[in-house]
Amino acid sequence: MSRAILTLNSGSSSLKLGLFTEDLQTLAMGHVDRIGRREAAMKIADAEGRPLPVPEHAPNDFATNAQALKTALEVFEADFPGLEVVAVGHRIVHGGIEHAAPELVTEALMKDLARLAPFAPLHQPHNLAGVRAALEAFPGTPQIVCYDTAFHRGHPFVADTYALPRAYYEEGVRRYGFHGLSYDYIHGELARTEPELHAGRVVVAHLGSGASMCALMDGKSVASTLGFSALDGLPMGTRSGELDPGVVLYLMDQKGMGPQEISDLLYKQSGLLGMSGVSNDMRTLEGSDDPHAKEAIDYFCFRIKRELGAMAAALGGLDGVVFCGGIGENSAATRARVCAGMEWLGIEIDPEANAAHARTISTGKVRVMVIPTNEEIVIARAAKAVLAQ
Amino acid sequence: MSRAILTLNSGSSSLKLGLFTEDLQTLAMGHVDRIGRREAAMKIADAEGRPLPVPEHAPNDFATNAQALKTALEVFEADFPGLEVVAVGHRIVHGGIEHAAPELVTEALMKDLARLAPFAPLHQPHNLAGVRAALEAFPGTPQIVCYDTAFHRGHPFVADTYALPRAYYEEGVRRYGFHGLSYDYIHGELARTEPELHAGRVVVAHLGSGASMCALMDGKSVASTLGFSALDGLPMGTRSGELDPGVVLYLMDQKGMGPQEISDLLYKQSGLLGMSGVSNDMRTLEGSDDPHAKEAIDYFCFRIKRELGAMAAALGGLDGVVFCGGIGENSAATRARVCAGMEWLGIEIDPEANAAHARTISTGKVRVMVIPTNEEIVIARAAKAVLAQ
Repeated sequence: MSRAILTLNSGSSSLKLGLFTEDLQTLAMGHVDRIGRREAAMKIADAEGRPLPVPEHAPNDFATNAQALKTALEVFEADFPGLEVVAVGHRIVHGGIEHAAPELVTEALMKDLARLAPFAPLHQPHNLAGVRAALEAFPGTPQIVCYDTAFHRGHPFVADTYALPRAYYEEGVRRYGFHGLSYDYIHGELARTEPELHAGRVVVAHLGSGASMCALMDGKSVASTLGFSALDGLPMGTRSGELDPGVVLYLMDQKGMGPQEISDLLYKQSGLLGMSGVSNDMRTLEGSDDPHAKEAIDYFCFRIKRELGAMAAALGGLDGVVFCGGIGENSAATRARVCAGMEWLGIEIDPEANAAHARTISTGKVRVMVIPTNEEIVIARAAKAVLAQ
Repeated sequence: MSRAILTLNSGSSSLKLGLFTEDLQTLAMGHVDRIGRREAAMKIADAEGRPLPVPEHAPNDFATNAQALKTALEVFEADFPGLEVVAVGHRIVHGGIEHAAPELVTEALMKDLARLAPFAPLHQPHNLAGVRAALEAFPGTPQIVCYDTAFHRGHPFVADTYALPRAYYEEGVRRYGFHGLSYDYIHGELARTEPELHAGRVVVAHLGSGASMCALMDGKSVASTLGFSALDGLPMGTRSGELDPGVVLYLMDQKGMGPQEISDLLYKQSGLLGMSGVSNDMRTLEGSDDPHAKEAIDYFCFRIKRELGAMAAALGGLDGVVFCGGIGENSAATRARVCAGMEWLGIEIDPEANAAHARTISTGKVRVMVIPTNEEIVIARAAKAVLAQ
C-alpha cells in the first residue's frame, strides 16, 4: 500500500498528472496528449524521467478528459500496485479577484469558479471539468485547487489595471498574470539556492507553448507580461500575444468577424504557427529553412528582449534573469538570441555554458540562469499544506 | 501682397492652421477647437506666440470643419492683408503601406487615401475632409499631403508586424506608428543642434492628448509604441493605449458590446479620463485632490517608464531621451516621475533645470532634453519641397 498525492492539470485536449509520496518525493509524471483524437497517447516517466510501461489501450480510452483520467489512473495503478491517493491537487487557471491561497474544493467553490469562466473561456471550463472527473474517480478524497493567478495578486495598482473607466477594474478587468505556479516554483528555488539573488530584482521568462515573463522583487511578482486573458504579452505557440485593440476592432468592423472567429484566430492560428505558416513548435521552426519560420523566431526573441527592458524598468534595474519552460529550458538558440545585444543591461552569456544548458550561463554582472520549472510539485505542496491545516 | 504657405491639420472637431512665408518663416499659428459645438472658438498667435486679433464671429461660423476653415481664412486675411496662399500642406494620419513621401493631391490620390479609412476610421475621414475643403477654398492652388505614418515605414520587420497569420501583414495589419511629423521635427532639431546625440540611440516621448514613443537610431525610427491604430501603446487623454485583445473579446462576447460601442469606449472614454473620472487634461489632474486622478497619473508615468525600458532594448542601449508634446514640454512633474528610479539606465535629472523646462535637464550619462515640437513647420517644409520638384 503506498499513499500518494496526485496532481492534475486538465486542459482542453491534454492532461498532465503528477504522483508524489506524502513527503513530496516524485513517484511519476504522466502526460496525455491530443485527447479526443485518434492520435491520443499517454506517456509516463519516473522521477528521473525514465519511461514507465504504458499498457496497450483501445482508441476510446482517451475519448474525453474524464475517460483519459480513468485510463491514466489504471496505468498508474499498474505501475504502482496498491496505490492509495490521499489527496488530489488541481491547477486552476483563474482565481479571479477573490481566490488566491490554495483551498479545498466544495460545491460552493466550484460554482464560484465556474462564474470566472468568462475571464478564461478556453481554460477555466476544462480545469473545472478535470476537478469534476476527479471528484467522481475519488469520492470522499480531499481535492485542493491552486490558482495560476495567485502569485500575481500582490501587483501594485499600476501593474494590475488597464486604462479603462474604473467600473471595469471593479468588475474584474485586471492584469491577472498566469503561469503563477511556475513562477512560484522558480521563486522557491531561488530562495533555497540563491538567497542573495532572490532578494534582488529578477525577471523570469517562462517560455513554452504558453509564454510570459514575470518581474520578481524580493521574490514577489510586481509585474507580468500576461494580463487579463491568456492572450497578452509575448507571442506564443498559437497565440498572438500583445495586439493593438484597434486590430480587433478592424477584424470586427471591417472584416465582419464575430467573437468566436476572432477568438479562434488569436488563440489557435496566430503566434509562431501563424507567422511561420510552418509549426507552433520551436524545435520544428529551428530546424526549418523557411524564411517565415526564421521571421517567427526573430519576432519571438525581439518581443522577449523588449519585455525584458520593460520588466527591468518596472523593477528599477536588473540583477538576474531565469529561463524556464520547454523553450526556456531546452532552446540554447533562443536564450542566446534574447541575450545578444543586451550588454547595456549587464547581460553577457557564456556560449559553452548556454549550449550545455548549465544552471548559470552568464559572465556579466546580471546573473542568467536556466532552472527547469515544476508546476506539479507546487500543486502537491499546496495540497499537502491544505490537508495539514 | 504676401505670398504664403498654409498648413492644415484637420481633426474630428478641431482644426490647426499654420501660416508661413515662402522661406518658411512663421507668420501665424491658428487653432479652432470644439467645431460643431456652441463653445467653438478660434485662437491665433504670431510667431512669438502673441495673440492676434480674432474678430467677433457668429455661432454658425464654426458649425462644420469646412465652415471653420472659411472663417479661419477670413481671420488670417484680416490680420495679413493681401495674403496670397501659394500652397496648402495637409497632415494625413495614414499613408498605408504605399504612401510615405509627401505628395501632390490628385483625385486618384484622394480615392486611394479614402480606401485607408478602415485603418484609421476616427482620423482619416476628417483629414481628407480638410483637404476637400481646402480644394474648394483654393481652387488651382497646389495641395500637398504629409503622412504621420511615413517616418516609421523603415521599421525592421519585427517592429512592423504582429504575430498573426502572414495574410494579415500582407493586407496591411502592421505597426504604422504615427506622430511621425513630430518625430521628424525632433530628429531634424537633433541633427542640427546635437549631431553626436543624433547619431546615437534616442527615445522621443511625444506626450500630448495623443501620446507615443519612438526609438531613434542614427535619426531613423526603429520602433514605436503606437501600432496599427491610434489606440496602442501609452494611455492617452481619452484612449486606452495597450490593451489585452482578450479584453476586447470579453467586451464582445460576455458584455454583448458592438464595434461602435467598443470603439467609443476605447477612443473616447478611456485613458486619463476613464481612469480618473475627472478629466482628460493632465493640468487638471495635476491640480486635483481626487485619488483616482493621482492613480491615472501614476499609470501614465508607469507605462512611459516601462516603454522607455522596452525602447532601450529595441535600441540596444540608450544615449538620450527627448520629451515633447503638450505634456512633455510643459509638465515638469511628469518628466520627473518618468525619470525617477531610472538611474540603472543612466538617467538622472537636475530638478531645477527640469522645473525651468530647460532644453537639457539631465546630469547623468543619458542626455535628457525638452524640445518643443512643431509639426506645422514639417508640413510647410514638405509643401515647399514638393513645389520645388
